[in-house]
Amino acid sequence: MTDATEADRHREKMAKRKAVQDAEVAQKTVEKGLLIVHTGPGKGKTTAALGLMVRALGRGWRVACVQFIKGGWDTGERHAFAAFGDRVSWHTLGEGFTWETQDKARDIAACRHAWERAEALMADPTVRLLVLDELNIALRYDYLDLAAVVGTLQARRPDLHVVVTGRNAKPMLIEAADLVTEMGSVKHHFAAGVKAQEGIEF
Amino acid sequence: MTDATEADRHREKMAKRKAVQDAEVAQKTVEKGLLIVHTGPGKGKTTAALGLMVRALGRGWRVACVQFIKGGWDTGERHAFAAFGDRVSWHTLGEGFTWETQDKARDIAACRHAWERAEALMADPTVRLLVLDELNIALRYDYLDLAAVVGTLQARRPDLHVVVTGRNAKPMLIEAADLVTEMGSVKHHFAAGVKAQEGIEF
Repeated sequence: MTDATEADRHREKMAKRKAVQDAEVAQKTVEKGLLIVHTGPGKGKTTAALGLMVRALGRGWRVACVQFIKGGWDTGERHAFAAFGDRVSWHTLGEGFTWETQDKARDIAACRHAWERAEALMADPTVRLLVLDELNIALRYDYLDLAAVVGTLQARRPDLHVVVTGRNAKPMLIEAADLVTEMGSVKHHFAAGVKAQEGIEF
Repeated sequence: MTDATEADRHREKMAKRKAVQDAEVAQKTVEKGLLIVHTGPGKGKTTAALGLMVRALGRGWRVACVQFIKGGWDTGERHAFAAFGDRVSWHTLGEGFTWETQDKARDIAACRHAWERAEALMADPTVRLLVLDELNIALRYDYLDLAAVVGTLQARRPDLHVVVTGRNAKPMLIEAADLVTEMGSVKHHFAAGVKAQEGIEF
């Protein structure tokens, strides 16, 4: 087979693929605020939510994030988002991971307080994207009522995108979601004795 | 069981967990630039890389991104990163997905050009994090030499973090990586007729 023939075959194959792709895109006409879930044991659940915040900011939107669990951590992303001024609204109400506090009643109160803040942000029409970071952990420990949380998420404004992160997403939440990604851990550097490093993990 | 007893049991359980966690953290002492791979069919591969860029920027680092495939797209993240001035160095050398160009020779030339740019950025000591977006696609189509690419990545400066994104990561790259996350698609809104929307997908 000559080079010219191979190039022709490639062009033909890719033209067919483009036609299929274009037809698929044309069929999708619905625009709506999405309920997005990032779950699974791998890295990238919160990090991909940060990426969505960046993309939304690039489109001129206002965004908000409520951290349900990681409150005790001083994270690099908070410094970075300061560059966007009041277009990012950040709410840290958790008090660290549950094995840091060792006080269940305090954890439950912190989660309820965080959820009330989330409800207030859902009612704010200037917010187009809301990240509920580690909400899945609060739901897994039954620190919040699952049916009430899912019901409120489903009844949100039609143009509001919500991202829920954390391992072990509840089936009822997955059922209600538009987009669910499971981050799987194929390989992890912690297993090789590498520590959590500034700029990468926090 | 009284409430007090339950709270005590919880406290004891969490204290044990904290001890295990603290001991694990203490064992991890290595600091190094990581080779990170985001692969799999699900959403979030590029988005999580954007999140890592944000976190790194929050620590005062300079970061760079080379886009191997998505060049034709005008993406929200580029607008957003403009807020960080010359601390973000963005290189778009791909000419759209391969079914957009239908010209294999041009695609190969674009990928080689992008890889040369990546090599130059790896040699720049001011860059602490380098994202090679959709490099896996270029490797999958054999538009770049896999062994040469992996060899160069392995020989990088010890403090440089590199993130490679794209489906179908080659086993040789996974073998060389420190951290590999597989994004799995549990549920996708495109299947329900929802289109790719500004601020979320691009």
